[in-house]
Amino acid sequence: MSSVVKRPAVVVPSHAASAAASRVFVEHVSPGLTAGAYAVKRVLGDELRVEADLICDGHDVVTGRVLYRSPGASAWCEVRMQPLVNDRFVASFALDQLGVWEYSVEGCVDAFATWRRSFDRRRESATDEDLIANLRQGASVLAATANRAPDPDRTRLHAAAQVLDDAERRPREAAHTGADAALLQLASQYPAFEQAGRSARAFELVVEPRLAGFSAWYEFFPRSTGSAGEHGTFRTSFARLQYAADMGFDIVYLPPIHPIGRSFRKGRNNAPAAEAGDPGSPWAIGAAEGGHMSVHPELGTLDDFRAFVARARELGVSVALDIALQASPDHPYVREHPEWFAKRPDGSIQYAENPPKKYQDIYPFDFECATAPELWQELTSVFLFWAEQGVTVFRVDNPHTKSLPFWAYCIHELKQRHPDAILLAEAFTRPKLMYALAKLGFSQSYTYFTWRNTKHELTTYLTELTKTDVAEFFRPNFWPNTPDILPEHLQYGGRAAFMARLVLAATLSSNYGIYGPAFELMEHVARAGAEEYLDNEKYEIKHWDVARPDSLRPLITQLNRIRRENPCLHENRSLEFHPTDNDALICYSKHRGSNIVITVVNLDPHHRQSGWLELDRTKLGIPAGTSYQVHDQLSQARYLWGDSRNYVELDPAGMPAHVFVVRYRVRSEADFDYFA
Amino acid sequence: MSSVVKRPAVVVPSHAASAAASRVFVEHVSPGLTAGAYAVKRVLGDELRVEADLICDGHDVVTGRVLYRSPGASAWCEVRMQPLVNDRFVASFALDQLGVWEYSVEGCVDAFATWRRSFDRRRESATDEDLIANLRQGASVLAATANRAPDPDRTRLHAAAQVLDDAERRPREAAHTGADAALLQLASQYPAFEQAGRSARAFELVVEPRLAGFSAWYEFFPRSTGSAGEHGTFRTSFARLQYAADMGFDIVYLPPIHPIGRSFRKGRNNAPAAEAGDPGSPWAIGAAEGGHMSVHPELGTLDDFRAFVARARELGVSVALDIALQASPDHPYVREHPEWFAKRPDGSIQYAENPPKKYQDIYPFDFECATAPELWQELTSVFLFWAEQGVTVFRVDNPHTKSLPFWAYCIHELKQRHPDAILLAEAFTRPKLMYALAKLGFSQSYTYFTWRNTKHELTTYLTELTKTDVAEFFRPNFWPNTPDILPEHLQYGGRAAFMARLVLAATLSSNYGIYGPAFELMEHVARAGAEEYLDNEKYEIKHWDVARPDSLRPLITQLNRIRRENPCLHENRSLEFHPTDNDALICYSKHRGSNIVITVVNLDPHHRQSGWLELDRTKLGIPAGTSYQVHDQLSQARYLWGDSRNYVELDPAGMPAHVFVVRYRVRSEADFDYFA
Repeated sequence: MSSVVKRPAVVVPSHAASAAASRVFVEHVSPGLTAGAYAVKRVLGDELRVEADLICDGHDVVTGRVLYRSPGASAWCEVRMQPLVNDRFVASFALDQLGVWEYSVEGCVDAFATWRRSFDRRRESATDEDLIANLRQGASVLAATANRAPDPDRTRLHAAAQVLDDAERRPREAAHTGADAALLQLASQYPAFEQAGRSARAFELVVEPRLAGFSAWYEFFPRSTGSAGEHGTFRTSFARLQYAADMGFDIVYLPPIHPIGRSFRKGRNNAPAAEAGDPGSPWAIGAAEGGHMSVHPELGTLDDFRAFVARARELGVSVALDIALQASPDHPYVREHPEWFAKRPDGSIQYAENPPKKYQDIYPFDFECATAPELWQELTSVFLFWAEQGVTVFRVDNPHTKSLPFWAYCIHELKQRHPDAILLAEAFTRPKLMYALAKLGFSQSYTYFTWRNTKHELTTYLTELTKTDVAEFFRPNFWPNTPDILPEHLQYGGRAAFMARLVLAATLSSNYGIYGPAFELMEHVARAGAEEYLDNEKYEIKHWDVARPDSLRPLITQLNRIRRENPCLHENRSLEFHPTDNDALICYSKHRGSNIVITVVNLDPHHRQSGWLELDRTKLGIPAGTSYQVHDQLSQARYLWGDSRNYVELDPAGMPAHVFVVRYRVRSEADFDYFA
Repeated sequence: MSSVVKRPAVVVPSHAASAAASRVFVEHVSPGLTAGAYAVKRVLGDELRVEADLICDGHDVVTGRVLYRSPGASAWCEVRMQPLVNDRFVASFALDQLGVWEYSVEGCVDAFATWRRSFDRRRESATDEDLIANLRQGASVLAATANRAPDPDRTRLHAAAQVLDDAERRPREAAHTGADAALLQLASQYPAFEQAGRSARAFELVVEPRLAGFSAWYEFFPRSTGSAGEHGTFRTSFARLQYAADMGFDIVYLPPIHPIGRSFRKGRNNAPAAEAGDPGSPWAIGAAEGGHMSVHPELGTLDDFRAFVARARELGVSVALDIALQASPDHPYVREHPEWFAKRPDGSIQYAENPPKKYQDIYPFDFECATAPELWQELTSVFLFWAEQGVTVFRVDNPHTKSLPFWAYCIHELKQRHPDAILLAEAFTRPKLMYALAKLGFSQSYTYFTWRNTKHELTTYLTELTKTDVAEFFRPNFWPNTPDILPEHLQYGGRAAFMARLVLAATLSSNYGIYGPAFELMEHVARAGAEEYLDNEKYEIKHWDVARPDSLRPLITQLNRIRRENPCLHENRSLEFHPTDNDALICYSKHRGSNIVITVVNLDPHHRQSGWLELDRTKLGIPAGTSYQVHDQLSQARYLWGDSRNYVELDPAGMPAHVFVVRYRVRSEADFDYFA
């Protein structure tokens, strides 16, 4: 089908087809967007390394600069670029402020450096007459350069230009000045950037708290922290908070804490009707007691919650709230703002459906309703309200079923006021939709890690996450389990599967989390045929015996300590996989400066597996020709490894993983201290 | 160094942060620009296949369209996109006009298709009441759809909407209409594109003549076509023209045909001073007789040249002129427009230099002089002048030493008037600068092929040229030799090296050329230590014995015939390399529809080489489970090949290459006709 249509004006690529255009073309700015408009992400304290191609005709000396502007600043700062190879240039600057930065690249000809290079080449062989002519040409280039400089440099450059111009009378002095290294350095500060070529756009960069890039999350239900038979509260959760902090978690994340609806309340195991005393699902938000800005009375008061947040802060832990933008039929919004919900033809509000399934306890908002601006503002104020209570970390439930422009709006408004806000997207959806949410501003995202089990699956997926453009905007957060998902390998793999998945999550991804105490107590009984917990905590109160001697708590504590102590585990960019000759063994490393960690995991929870690792020293970051010590942080065993092939053997009945810290010195064998 | 600077306003990425923004995000448009503003290239008669990601929240049915506009048209045409996988969509349209096209992508929700899918899912299980409510929801979606349609579709859609709305009274009729396939098809023509998400920009596409994509060039000096001791002319060149046409060349390319300067004229072998009778270099353009729009009197008159062009046209050959934008000291521009040249401090014009070398016979133009607009216009008029004489193919000398914005201007102006113009960039320079020239509009470019000899070098380079974004804007033209370059392997490789390089050029690249008769006569004596011809034709008149019995003319003729007969050799996109177990043997294939050519070349000119090819049927385009016949177009030998591994042996003393055409049929062995 083909027909003639009208359409709005579009931006047509403009060629630099005029004499006013710059000779220098700026291309392939990195990091830069290859598609769509989004900000790349970094954390506070990072350096941004900007590279670009600066392409000019002929053989003139080209120079470049990065212009950047910190959040809220009106003036641009500049940092000059250094040449790499093949017309590529680089510059870096420090990111010392939260918020949205901008940067762009400019390139121009450095006319004095160009003159100087040709002067150097002809000095040996030129006739006196040629040399004088050449020096006088240099004088005119230098005078133009001086006119761009402020005093006192302007005066100094003009003086030097006069010396060059006077080459006929004082040739030796002029030649000496022309060859002066200090003069070249001074003049090179003032190339003709007013004639620069520029990157087609300014790029955005969002700087977030360090916690956005490196975090260990612990999810638990406060209502399951009471004494047997009782509904837990924020107060009874203090012990669980202490317990999570003792294990070394950075973030404690609570399912929704709001009043739970009564209409169509679901019973245990998601039964269509609740029995008396069933507490309901915390995701059925809203009741007579209030909505998204209220606290479920059985958990305590808003003051109790504030006390919980304060206690967490004392322990160095951040509290994350789960924001689920949906309403139970009892939510005050349903009465006060029926226009925010889609209607059925009989005028009743449309409940959630996934035909033929009906979710009559959940009303989705209509993000495109006639009063969308008011709805969007109100929902954004939910985040702002909790931020004012001291919560700046949010886990967002099902963001992929809400309008994408809403998230752009909401995150922009929130971050304007709270640039330290961190949002984790619970989006187990189509890959491009997950990435779109990250581009719109989510700080972290759930991933497909939960279903990536084999060496090939893990290698392929992690390569996409860490070695492509995805790494610029998408921060993975690896969850071995969630209240919604008990994956098959945890149902059948026993203790070793829990240990292996924990090590993988904690070392492959700088951000990871577990849903506990179900995880550390190795809860593994599923509803028949499903990847879901039987007797799911979403619909009932559980009483966990966290003191059980078989708990994985010591291993979790060990891993969180290893993560903190090794800076290379605080990011994912350096991740490299190394071949093994056994597909049940996966081996990978991260490095940052001299800190190197090599992890080896036996992916088979049932059998002892052994094999040879082929370690690539370049990828490890270890100089050639040295032997090095690997020190297993789990078993405390140490080995001296000398070449690329090394043997490992891992028994799932004991510990299915090595997490080696590498120690090497270039100079002397004596530097290895095996008893340190 | 870091300081505060002012800088012009930049385009800041705008987030779709308002309720008016579309729910659908358009990303990763292909072909699209990953860097810089440039048009992708196609030839007349191609289809443009456009792909894009259309990303929407939730699970609604998304649809998309490509809007495109042919050169000069004001209205946009549309073609609807079809879904592929993972939110990716595709549409194609035919390119039936030369010039610059524009295209962009839009995506929106198809509300009626979304309703219809949910209706289909619930029909089986829903209660009557639910079904009626659902049909009435469909009615309201359909009514909105109808309002976007012109009559008669509008009336038909409204009528159907009324049937759905009447579901309570006539449920069976409403359900029947709701499920009607024709209604779905009709309604799907009118989704809410006024709420569409759009690609961030409109993309440009330049459609050039087929010759821009598939051409064989033959370069010769007309002055070397006279009788012994005489200066050749356009008239004496008719025979050489016939000779080139007989070999099957598409383009005959002449070095500059303008008056040659006398001041500082170079002698034989580039001697600093000419002897009496030395003809000078044709690239020292301009004398009392005229400049870039005049003809060298010794070659004849402008009428003679026009006759030459007319004769070429009769033979089906295009004439290409060499445009070198530089002047000899005797060029009329030097007297009439001294302001177009850079000056030395004494007021004299600056000659070309590459310190310590001086080229006093060449004055470069100053593309950034005060009167640049006039200069640019004048130089552009050189191309326009020759286009009016019937020449639309130009080889441009050293374009990389001229201002890049000048080329953007010049090519734009030329192509506005002559959209059939084809420009070949002689740019053996830095890779990114070569690519920048192609992005600015050069149709074809010289390449590094001349120095890529080993299997690894050829594979790596061709992969960059054919499998990356480069293929969208850069059309390689492979030259085994030029008057400037006699590469080492031709100096020492003997006849076999000439043959191998010829086969490689003609089959790897859809555009190739040779500088003859030096090539077919295997001229191989170089100036000591250089990759340059001794007694270079640039500085003297040669007399070539083209009838020599050892000439490569028959092989060239054969290759040009093979190229014409096999459509897969008319482009480079399908190029695939296949492994061989001998590094001296390179094997590659191209395919287009059922036309498949496999080429195998022995890269060692001195020894017989044999080995096994591992042919990948998927890459070849041959269905699995068939055997196939390969028919060597050079030797006429035929082999029946049955599996992926096949043996070859090539003796450089005979023919160092196979060029196989593949024949296969899926159905029956009887389809192989070994005597065809």
